[in-house]
Amino acid sequence: MPSPEARPAAGPEAFCIDLRVYYQDTDAGGVVYHANYLNFFERARTEWLRHLGYDLRAMAQAGHLFIVRRLELRFLRPALLDDRLRVSVEVEHVGRAQLTLRQRACRDAQDLVEASVNLACVEGGSFRPTALPGTLYAELAPSASTIRQNERSKRGRHS
Amino acid sequence: MPSPEARPAAGPEAFCIDLRVYYQDTDAGGVVYHANYLNFFERARTEWLRHLGYDLRAMAQAGHLFIVRRLELRFLRPALLDDRLRVSVEVEHVGRAQLTLRQRACRDAQDLVEASVNLACVEGGSFRPTALPGTLYAELAPSASTIRQNERSKRGRHS
Amino acid sequence: MPSPEARPAAGPEAFCIDLRVYYQDTDAGGVVYHANYLNFFERARTEWLRHLGYDLRAMAQAGHLFIVRRLELRFLRPALLDDRLRVSVEVEHVGRAQLTLRQRACRDAQDLVEASVNLACVEGGSFRPTALPGTLYAELAPSASTIRQNERSKRGRHS
Amino acid sequence: MPSPEARPAAGPEAFCIDLRVYYQDTDAGGVVYHANYLNFFERARTEWLRHLGYDLRAMAQAGHLFIVRRLELRFLRPALLDDRLRVSVEVEHVGRAQLTLRQRACRDAQDLVEASVNLACVEGGSFRPTALPGTLYAELAPSASTIRQNERSKRGRHS
Repeated sequence: MPSPEARPAAGPEAFCIDLRVYYQDTDAGGVVYHANYLNFFERARTEWLRHLGYDLRAMAQAGHLFIVRRLELRFLRPALLDDRLRVSVEVEHVGRAQLTLRQRACRDAQDLVEASVNLACVEGGSFRPTALPGTLYAELAPSASTIRQNERSKRGRHS
Repeated sequence: MPSPEARPAAGPEAFCIDLRVYYQDTDAGGVVYHANYLNFFERARTEWLRHLGYDLRAMAQAGHLFIVRRLELRFLRPALLDDRLRVSVEVEHVGRAQLTLRQRACRDAQDLVEASVNLACVEGGSFRPTALPGTLYAELAPSASTIRQNERSKRGRHS
Repeated sequence: MPSPEARPAAGPEAFCIDLRVYYQDTDAGGVVYHANYLNFFERARTEWLRHLGYDLRAMAQAGHLFIVRRLELRFLRPALLDDRLRVSVEVEHVGRAQLTLRQRACRDAQDLVEASVNLACVEGGSFRPTALPGTLYAELAPSASTIRQNERSKRGRHS
Repeated sequence: MPSPEARPAAGPEAFCIDLRVYYQDTDAGGVVYHANYLNFFERARTEWLRHLGYDLRAMAQAGHLFIVRRLELRFLRPALLDDRLRVSVEVEHVGRAQLTLRQRACRDAQDLVEASVNLACVEGGSFRPTALPGTLYAELAPSASTIRQNERSKRGRHS
């Protein structure tokens, strides 16, 4: 049985990175400033893409960018200076020119922030939509549908 | 008749600030980095509260903080280095211990980013929900319901 | 006689912008995070260049960038949430392909942070040094020598 | 013989962390925005202190903060999106209530940014200088003098 500490809250297929909260991430309220979770999420997405074989510099040189088109965030509990956070990425939906990821920032077994992040693949310069690299689409499309099925059957809710 | 350039997209009762895009706001894609719009929105909310007579340092000293609890963002068009942006705040809903604002970042008559921002009023330290200052609630509650009515009758959509 | 509040600490020829400290600028120590003063200084430099007729987007399109090559900063007193700061720019030295600015962040009559900022003018892409636009050089070179002379005679110190 | 890739430029006793450059770190010039190196340096300093047994949250709870009092930075070469950087910390000088660190950001064997960072230990709230924790002082004081000696004898320069 997997320990809940090991992969808190995120599903079994989630990709995770671990990071530390520094002063630069906090504000005078004593907690992580809300916008900085978007930085944490970007780091996790980038490492997830690299893990899949896609690095963003090479993509940019080939004229392709991912841009954030829609974001939904829920802030459940604050993170504090020196906290060790786990930030996860799961595929929620894959289209020909866009994808939607579910991301979470957790401390131990507790979800702190949940996000749904919709990204469009665009041409650099014009910012016109363009198809995802074919191999990326082929790799992600099946996993997305599996995760959505699991969601539906196990949890009966849609974030 | 008010010029559409003057108050682009935001309703007639919106509070606005103007700001400039600097290198610090941009990324290697050549546009404003998505998380930085949250900084722009925080600046506008803070000035709107100050305009209403509430400054955040005095509130913090009295043990009250606003924290972001839920965020929905749509990124419609990119902003570029040196762009002059107008960032607006409108009250969407007011509760006893939380409020929801609609915020927009515009360039001339074009909406670039739209946001719905739900804030909770909490006690510093414990982060437990607490009532909005009574005078702020009294001031905002009627305007919120007016705006929601206008929304319903004039636009027939809910963002 | 000019009021010391009006132009605190900076010399009579300094260019100034005013700005407000928001949560985004602070850290869990309750003060402005040190790196964020560099953002304040960049905003002031950019507005100073615009005031002289040079905007950075047009310069970038013409293939010229200013890059920071050397920085010296002294942090004298902390700035707090909601503080109103004045950030100044004075020319310290102008060369054919680089210039050094003295910048200050002040609150009322108090210097909070002092900086010496050396910028190089480079070609976009290659980052090779290139001459300042001739008209900018012609405009700045005399004022720089005047300010250095004033410094020497009036203050007898070098920051 | 140690490989130059393994500990580029920094001395043999330097503490290092590795990090990746993300879009959040870059600007529209296509390179890491200069202020963001201060974030990289803060991460390295914090992990160095943790490695020595001092965590900043515990220090803050005991009423002690480190604040940056003086910074000198040289920007030698730009870092790019997706670059893997090594950020190092070496003790340059230790006093009873302050210390000076030499920090570097390197890519492979190349120094990109060099910094001298002077930190003061202060009381939270009052920001009055206070002595370094005695055990930290005892640990650092000898290594600082060794490094300064090495500097003098081997390199004959002062950064």
